[in-house]
Amino acid sequence: MGTLNINPELDDQIFNTINPLDPEEFRKQGHMIVNFVADYYQNIEKYPVCSQVNPGYLQKLVPNSAPDNPEPLEKILQDVKRDIIPGITHWQSPNFFAYFPSSGSTAGFLGEMLSVGFNVVGFNWISSPAATELESIVMDWFGKMLNLPYSFLFSGGGGGVLQGTTCEAMLCNIVAARDQMLRKIGRENFGKLVVYTSDQTHFSLKKAAHIAGIDPENFRVIPTTKANEYVLCPKSLRLAILKDTKEGMVPLFLCATIGTTSTTSVDPLRSLCEIAKEYGIWVHVDAAYAGSACICPEFQHFLDGIENANSFSLNAHKWFFSTLDCCCLWVKDPSALTKALSTNPECLRNKATELNQVIDYKDWQISLSRRFRALKLWLVLRNYGVTSLRNLIRSHVNMAKHFEGLIAMDKRFEIFVPRKFAVVCFRISPSVISRVSTTFDEEQVNKFNTKLVESINSSGKLYLTHGVVGGIYIIRFAIGASLTDYRHVDMAWKVIQDHANVLLIPGSF
Amino acid sequence: MGTLNINPELDDQIFNTINPLDPEEFRKQGHMIVNFVADYYQNIEKYPVCSQVNPGYLQKLVPNSAPDNPEPLEKILQDVKRDIIPGITHWQSPNFFAYFPSSGSTAGFLGEMLSVGFNVVGFNWISSPAATELESIVMDWFGKMLNLPYSFLFSGGGGGVLQGTTCEAMLCNIVAARDQMLRKIGRENFGKLVVYTSDQTHFSLKKAAHIAGIDPENFRVIPTTKANEYVLCPKSLRLAILKDTKEGMVPLFLCATIGTTSTTSVDPLRSLCEIAKEYGIWVHVDAAYAGSACICPEFQHFLDGIENANSFSLNAHKWFFSTLDCCCLWVKDPSALTKALSTNPECLRNKATELNQVIDYKDWQISLSRRFRALKLWLVLRNYGVTSLRNLIRSHVNMAKHFEGLIAMDKRFEIFVPRKFAVVCFRISPSVISRVSTTFDEEQVNKFNTKLVESINSSGKLYLTHGVVGGIYIIRFAIGASLTDYRHVDMAWKVIQDHANVLLIPGSF
Repeated sequence: MGTLNINPELDDQIFNTINPLDPEEFRKQGHMIVNFVADYYQNIEKYPVCSQVNPGYLQKLVPNSAPDNPEPLEKILQDVKRDIIPGITHWQSPNFFAYFPSSGSTAGFLGEMLSVGFNVVGFNWISSPAATELESIVMDWFGKMLNLPYSFLFSGGGGGVLQGTTCEAMLCNIVAARDQMLRKIGRENFGKLVVYTSDQTHFSLKKAAHIAGIDPENFRVIPTTKANEYVLCPKSLRLAILKDTKEGMVPLFLCATIGTTSTTSVDPLRSLCEIAKEYGIWVHVDAAYAGSACICPEFQHFLDGIENANSFSLNAHKWFFSTLDCCCLWVKDPSALTKALSTNPECLRNKATELNQVIDYKDWQISLSRRFRALKLWLVLRNYGVTSLRNLIRSHVNMAKHFEGLIAMDKRFEIFVPRKFAVVCFRISPSVISRVSTTFDEEQVNKFNTKLVESINSSGKLYLTHGVVGGIYIIRFAIGASLTDYRHVDMAWKVIQDHANVLLIPGSF
Repeated sequence: MGTLNINPELDDQIFNTINPLDPEEFRKQGHMIVNFVADYYQNIEKYPVCSQVNPGYLQKLVPNSAPDNPEPLEKILQDVKRDIIPGITHWQSPNFFAYFPSSGSTAGFLGEMLSVGFNVVGFNWISSPAATELESIVMDWFGKMLNLPYSFLFSGGGGGVLQGTTCEAMLCNIVAARDQMLRKIGRENFGKLVVYTSDQTHFSLKKAAHIAGIDPENFRVIPTTKANEYVLCPKSLRLAILKDTKEGMVPLFLCATIGTTSTTSVDPLRSLCEIAKEYGIWVHVDAAYAGSACICPEFQHFLDGIENANSFSLNAHKWFFSTLDCCCLWVKDPSALTKALSTNPECLRNKATELNQVIDYKDWQISLSRRFRALKLWLVLRNYGVTSLRNLIRSHVNMAKHFEGLIAMDKRFEIFVPRKFAVVCFRISPSVISRVSTTFDEEQVNKFNTKLVESINSSGKLYLTHGVVGGIYIIRFAIGASLTDYRHVDMAWKVIQDHANVLLIPGSF
C-alpha cells in the first residue's frame, strides 16, 4: 500500500527528472530538425543515390551500449550527418529511379508531424473520434477521385481504411475470404482452399496466404507470356479453376494487379472478375503502384470491371506524396472484414460502439493500435488539390515518355514492354551484345545488362533496379521521386549511355 | 513508343506543376507546424481530455469531396484547431490516465521527423543499410538495458526487430511456431495445434492465433483468480496441457504476460517456461506495457526465468517515450522467424543478401515495406540517456504510489489489487454503496462504479478507463503521460472525490 511520505520536490532532486514534452524545448529542437531536413533536401544531389557502405559499417562507428547521460541534439545530428546519411539510400533523391518511388512531400510530412504530435491511438472511435471520422471521410474523397464504384464507398455501403502496407491489406482480405468460405463449407475443408495469382503478382500475396494458413501446395501461380504483355490470362485462370474444382478443391481468392512490379502490366479486370464471380472467388485488386494514376480520368479505364471485385488497394506512400506508411484499402463488404477481425474486450467497451453508431477501425485491420494516418492524406489532398495532384502524376508519366523517346533514338537499346505509367522497362539489345561478346546466348545478354546496372549504381549518380520476366533480365527506370525533373532524366540517360559505351567496347566484357 | 516532342517548359505551363519537396517551402511550412504543435502542448490542459463530440460530427463540417485547388496551410491549420482538435482524445494531456499511456517525447518526435524526412523504405539491407544496421544496434542496446539473456541479443545469436504493434509481433511468432511444429508433425495435423493463454492475456493474442489459422476451438483460456492476483497458474497450465495431449492434441504456443491489461499482473515466467519447455511449447512473453519498467534494476526480477522463453516484446510507444508505433520484439532463434516469413523475389536480389552478410528485416515481419523506426528509439536513448529514462519511469511509479496513498486515506474507496507499476486499480467499496443504495449486490456495485467513471470522464477534466476482472468492475488509474506531474495526480484525485461525493448522497443513485 502506498505511503504519503513521497515528496515531489525530493523526487525532482533525486531523479533530476526531465520534462520530455516541455513545449519550449520542443519548439527549439523542432525548428532545428526542420532546418536539418530542409538542408538535407537542398543537398540531396551531392550524395551517392545508392549507399556505398559495406555490411557492418555502422557497428564500427557506434558504442556498444546506450549512453548513461543525455547527449545534446547538436551532437546527435552531427552523427546523423557523419554516420547515418552515408548509409542511407536516398529514396528522395531526384536521381532515384529504383523499385517504385517513395514519393515524399511537404504536405505529407506536415500531416505526419501533426499525427506524431497528437500521438493519439485511434483503435476505436471513442479513443479519438476525429481519427476515425477523418479517415472515413478522406477514404470516400479518394474513392471518388478514382471514380471507384459507389459500392466501395461508405456512402454506398462499402468503405475504406488506411493500413500500413499492401501485405497487411492482402492478409486481412484473405482472412476475411477464408472465414467467409469456412462458414459455408466447414473448417474441416480448410486444406482445400485455393489461391490464384500470376507469376507477376507481388510476392507478398504468397506470404499473406501462407500466414493465413493456406496450404502452400494450394497456391496457384499462373504463367504469363511476353506475347500477352505479362498479364494474367482469363482462359488460363478458368482452366486452373476447373482443374481444382474437378479435384474437389475450393477456389477461394484471386489477386489481380493494376501495374505489376516488374513491368507495370495491367491484368484484365473485367474478364477476371466475371470468372471469379461464377465460382464465388474473392477478388482483391492490388494497385499498389499504379492505383494513384487512376485519379487521372485518362487512366481510369484500367479499373474497368472493378465493380465485381471485392477489395482494392493502393499505396499512397508510393506515388501519392504521402510518406511511409499509407496503404489505402477499400472493400465492398466491410462486414466480411469485421466478422474475421473483430474483438470486443471489456476494456474497450463503450456506448458508441454498443449502439453501432460508429466504425471501430481495429476491426478492419490486424493490429489494435493505429496511428492517425488520415491527417497526412488530408493534408496532401487539401494542400495540393486534385488538379495539381493529377498534374504531378502526369508530369511523371510525361518524363517517362520523354525517357522512352531517348531510348528509341539509340538503337543499341530496346524497350522491353510498352510503357503504361511512369516506369520504362528496357535493356541493351541482344543484337548489340552479339557483336561485342565472344559467346552469345540469352544468359550472356542477361549478364551484360546486369553488369550495366551494377556499374551505373556503383557510380552513385543514379539508382536503378531490375526485374526478371520469363528468364529475361530487364532494367527498370521508375520515375516518381518528388524532386525529379527533366534534367535529372536527361542526366540519367547520359550516365546510362556512358556506362554502356564502356561495356560495349569489344572484348571489354 | 515515346516521342520527343514533349517540351518540359510546356509541361510546366500546362500542368502548373508544383514542387512538392521544395526545400525552402518545406522549411517555412515545417516551422509553422512545429510552432503549431508546441502551442498545442502549451494549451493542452485547456481541452477536455476525452473528446466530447457525437458520432458523425465531422461529416457535417467538411465538404463531400477533395478540393480541386490548393488550400494554404494557414487555412488547414485553422480547420485542425476548429474541427479536428475537439474530436481528439488528448492522449498527451497530463490528465490522461486511461488505457495505458502513449508517452510522447520531443526526442521521439524528432526521431520520427528524421525518419519521415529521409522516407527510406528499408525492407532489406541494400535498400538502406543504415536503417537495418541502426535497428540491430539499438535493439542490442535496449536488450542490454533490460538485462535480457545474451541469447536474445544479436551478439548472442538471437536478435531484435522493430515492428508496429504487439499484435503483429504475436502473429509473427505464432506463424514461426506453427511452421516449426508442422515441419515436425506434418501439415495434416494443423487442426490439432493448441494455444494457451489466461483470461487476462491481451485479446490480440486470440486475434493473431485466429489469423494464423489456429482453430478457435483450440484456444485455451485458463481462468485466473483474485486470490492468485490474476496470474496464469502453472498448475492449471499443466492440467490443460495434459488434457490436450491425452486427447491427441498438439500444444503449440503459450503467451505469458508481464503487466496484464486490466490489473498489470505478472505471470510467473520461470515456472511457466519450465513447463512449456517440457512439452516443446513456444513461449512468447508479452510485456507491452510493463517491459519498459524493466530498464530499472528493481523491476528486472519480473523477467526471471525468461531464458527459457522464445520471444519477448514490449511497446516503446506505450511507456518508453517513442511515439506510435514502435513494438520491440526479441527472439532467441531468428531462423524460426525467417523460415516462416522469408521471401526472395528476383526484384530484391542483391549481393549482400546472397552472401548472407546482412539482415533483411522484411523476413522478420509481415510487411515488405518498413519505416526507419530505429531513429526515434536511438534519439530517445541518446538524447535522454539511460539514467534519466530510468528516473522518468520511477517518477511515474512514485506518482502512482502517491495516488495509492491518497486512496488509502479515504475509506470509501478500496485498492483492488496490489499496485506493481504505475497503474492503480481501485473502486468505491461495496460497503459504502450498501449504505446509500436501496438495492445491493455485486451488480449494483459495478453499476455504481461505472456511473462514477462516466461522470468523471464527461467532465472532461481527466480521462480514466475501466477493467472487468472476475465479474468485478474496477477503475484503472494509469500514470505515464509525459506531461503528468504530482499536481495533476492531486487534481485528479480531487475530481474523483468530488464526483463520488455527489453519487454518494443517499438516494441519488
